[in-house]
Amino acid sequence: MPQGPIAILAGAGQLPIQLVSHLERTGQEVRVLAFRGFAEAELQRRAHATVDLLDLKTIMSTLEEWRPQAVSLVGAVRRPGFSALLSAYSLLRNMHEVKEVIARGDDQVLRGAVMLLEERGHRVVGAHELAPDLVAARTLSGSMQPNADDREAIAVGLDLLAALSAFDIGQGAIVARRHVLAIEGPEGTDRMLRRVRGLRQSWFGLRRRKEGGVLIKAAKRGQDLRVDMPTIGPRTIIEADKAGLSGIAVGAGSTFVLEQEETLRTADRLGLFLIAVDLPWMEKPRG
Amino acid sequence: MPQGPIAILAGAGQLPIQLVSHLERTGQEVRVLAFRGFAEAELQRRAHATVDLLDLKTIMSTLEEWRPQAVSLVGAVRRPGFSALLSAYSLLRNMHEVKEVIARGDDQVLRGAVMLLEERGHRVVGAHELAPDLVAARTLSGSMQPNADDREAIAVGLDLLAALSAFDIGQGAIVARRHVLAIEGPEGTDRMLRRVRGLRQSWFGLRRRKEGGVLIKAAKRGQDLRVDMPTIGPRTIIEADKAGLSGIAVGAGSTFVLEQEETLRTADRLGLFLIAVDLPWMEKPRG
Repeated sequence: MPQGPIAILAGAGQLPIQLVSHLERTGQEVRVLAFRGFAEAELQRRAHATVDLLDLKTIMSTLEEWRPQAVSLVGAVRRPGFSALLSAYSLLRNMHEVKEVIARGDDQVLRGAVMLLEERGHRVVGAHELAPDLVAARTLSGSMQPNADDREAIAVGLDLLAALSAFDIGQGAIVARRHVLAIEGPEGTDRMLRRVRGLRQSWFGLRRRKEGGVLIKAAKRGQDLRVDMPTIGPRTIIEADKAGLSGIAVGAGSTFVLEQEETLRTADRLGLFLIAVDLPWMEKPRG
Repeated sequence: MPQGPIAILAGAGQLPIQLVSHLERTGQEVRVLAFRGFAEAELQRRAHATVDLLDLKTIMSTLEEWRPQAVSLVGAVRRPGFSALLSAYSLLRNMHEVKEVIARGDDQVLRGAVMLLEERGHRVVGAHELAPDLVAARTLSGSMQPNADDREAIAVGLDLLAALSAFDIGQGAIVARRHVLAIEGPEGTDRMLRRVRGLRQSWFGLRRRKEGGVLIKAAKRGQDLRVDMPTIGPRTIIEADKAGLSGIAVGAGSTFVLEQEETLRTADRLGLFLIAVDLPWMEKPRG
């Protein structure tokens, strides 16, 4: 058995809270290092230390003190400016590599953090490894099911996300039949959903009705699931409903579903389907 | 010599106005059919007829009366609802094909209009064929030039747009070095630029400064340039500046540049580069 606590480096959102609760419930020793300005107030209260995102010196010395058996980076952090990142990552040995990493995209910036932790001898694990219960199983499903148009949209969306895998963008897209309505950028899923809602309002006036279309969320080909795994929750369902969508499809085994029961209940209540689909570019998950 | 006037079916924006002015200056006979609610007021005043976008019966009978040597569809129209389109296109013989066309995307809807006109024996030409002066030449350039980071961003943007060509989305993207900040959907270029401006404000507070990044606009692989050719103008430069970009690259020979002198002057004044690049997937343009 490995020794020491599990260290959670916690950014914004519900995922870190749910992960910490899950670990505590299962009797594991947990230490929380909360990022100031990102971690939710509830988690900041429960945290064992609170640090600035870019204060790598304090982060590293705290971890050295805790001697965790594993470290997990969980929750959203906004991409800081280029020069701020550069100076933060200056602890790394290979500056050329750091610059390359930073230039590449959000995902790669988090990869930089993993590199740094691993260089210091830490074992970095994903939240999905620590708490498989939080991940979408292949059997995930509410009471609604996608129709033929929705299935077509899901197939197009998966093709599209596969084509985008090389570009470090696009964990999400919204497609109605074969018509791509939006591709997710750094703005995130909620803002993308609001964009489609806005498009539809300008097309059809203020009438609110189900126009159809599917939100597809999936991890990228070759994505390190230890960083920035796609996440949905009850709020995603509510925003998808407001955008007039008929449902949501997520990658099985590689998407977090926050408050899974509440999420499914919300989908049923609003008449949206929620299903998990196998991603052709990922290993088949269990479940 | 072909007989009859050139018929311009005019939607929103400056392009139809500039095209009509260009044709009149060069002594051609022009008839303008303006779409109600889309064509600019100035053009509605100069129009020979004003019709509803979906009133195909009147559009067809007007064209029969005019007997034009060529018809051009110019300017933006918003995608109407599915059922409205379906009933409008019911004049077409092959309903299955129409449904397929409508399901596919904005571009394909305009293709439907071209099919319909061609079925009725009209010769449909692109505005770029009628007025090559309005198109970005390979030599297009303001006084600023892209630096190495910008050139990297342009290469990534072109790869990205090539990968998206199959999906009837993405005539535009915004990239900073290798970091994709946004992909254009049906919301259009201006709103995409405002989205990036918003992202950067939330990252860096309200400080306004040049963060870099390039807007890349390019026609899709296999795109019918007679419909919905990418277009930029002075407003694009102003919005790109507000988003903190360092410049704009457009596909040579396949992008309209409205008010070309004013556009270049605006770019110079705001310190943005504006260049035309060869698209690997298009025939090499002259000029």
